[in-house]
Amino acid sequence: MMRNGVNVTALAGTIRAIQKQPELAQFKFRARNQWDTGAQNMATVDSFYGTCQELEHKPAFTMQADEHPVLLGEDKGANPVEFVLAGLSGCMTTTLAYHSAGRGLNIESIESEYEGDIDLQGLLDLNPKVRPGYREIRVKFRVKGDADEATIQELVRKSPVYDTLANPVKIKIEVEKV
Amino acid sequence: MMRNGVNVTALAGTIRAIQKQPELAQFKFRARNQWDTGAQNMATVDSFYGTCQELEHKPAFTMQADEHPVLLGEDKGANPVEFVLAGLSGCMTTTLAYHSAGRGLNIESIESEYEGDIDLQGLLDLNPKVRPGYREIRVKFRVKGDADEATIQELVRKSPVYDTLANPVKIKIEVEKV
Repeated sequence: MMRNGVNVTALAGTIRAIQKQPELAQFKFRARNQWDTGAQNMATVDSFYGTCQELEHKPAFTMQADEHPVLLGEDKGANPVEFVLAGLSGCMTTTLAYHSAGRGLNIESIESEYEGDIDLQGLLDLNPKVRPGYREIRVKFRVKGDADEATIQELVRKSPVYDTLANPVKIKIEVEKV
Repeated sequence: MMRNGVNVTALAGTIRAIQKQPELAQFKFRARNQWDTGAQNMATVDSFYGTCQELEHKPAFTMQADEHPVLLGEDKGANPVEFVLAGLSGCMTTTLAYHSAGRGLNIESIESEYEGDIDLQGLLDLNPKVRPGYREIRVKFRVKGDADEATIQELVRKSPVYDTLANPVKIKIEVEKV
């Protein structure tokens, strides 16, 4: 049975399978990046691990990053902090569609807007009190469907990217000189 | 003068301008999202605010999100948590290229790999101890150029997306039923 474009029969089956065998829920997502010049670099996403197996995207997805000329680039792609807002938008939207489907709530439309504040004094080491990243991100949803406002507020916060941004993530970095 | 594809004369000018007038450094980045069905939605990035003015990307950038069939999608685009890794990769890479240029260090090549762990029991509400987002992200850089390992480790951590993920961000959400 489909609801909100989500196969809720398959979703219920996935949940039952994970309840029996929690290691099915362990995913490893990946990207790799190749620098070109200046602000231009290309990320490739082609494989991941999940449901106890290696899996592939066919074809691979590539994302070209650049900066606008005011940030000394040539504007050949969105910039990396814009990719993060795009990821947040996709994740909160999909989370709302899936969880609403799981609760039997039909959704007709979801539109949303994102705006985040960055003070470049942080990146440029001009003020030690200023963080390099987003200080605050504001989100506005416009939703048509069965879910009420409080339910929407609850469901979008289940988003993995929302949690990744709202709470700290441990990041380990290895460097090899070649 | 160009170094690492970065106009370091313009970079020094930008830094001097911000030191005189810090409000030039206040940026607002934006995205908007339109849900299609299931896991399919499209983010658009077309405007931002910075250097005390409204600015545009021409043309606008769009990012199609979807999920792989194991996550009940049709794999028509990278998934939102993959966009976040792509953004992290672009940001750490550009930050390394720019800061190295600013310090007079020539970089010949930068390659990097990213892998992050997500336990879907969090998103699916199957275990309250499991967070929905990335538990850990591992990064490997391979760099050819003048910067030594310790300098690379220092510079990549100045990345705005690194800081956005490693430290909490305040996210405010408004919901309108239409």
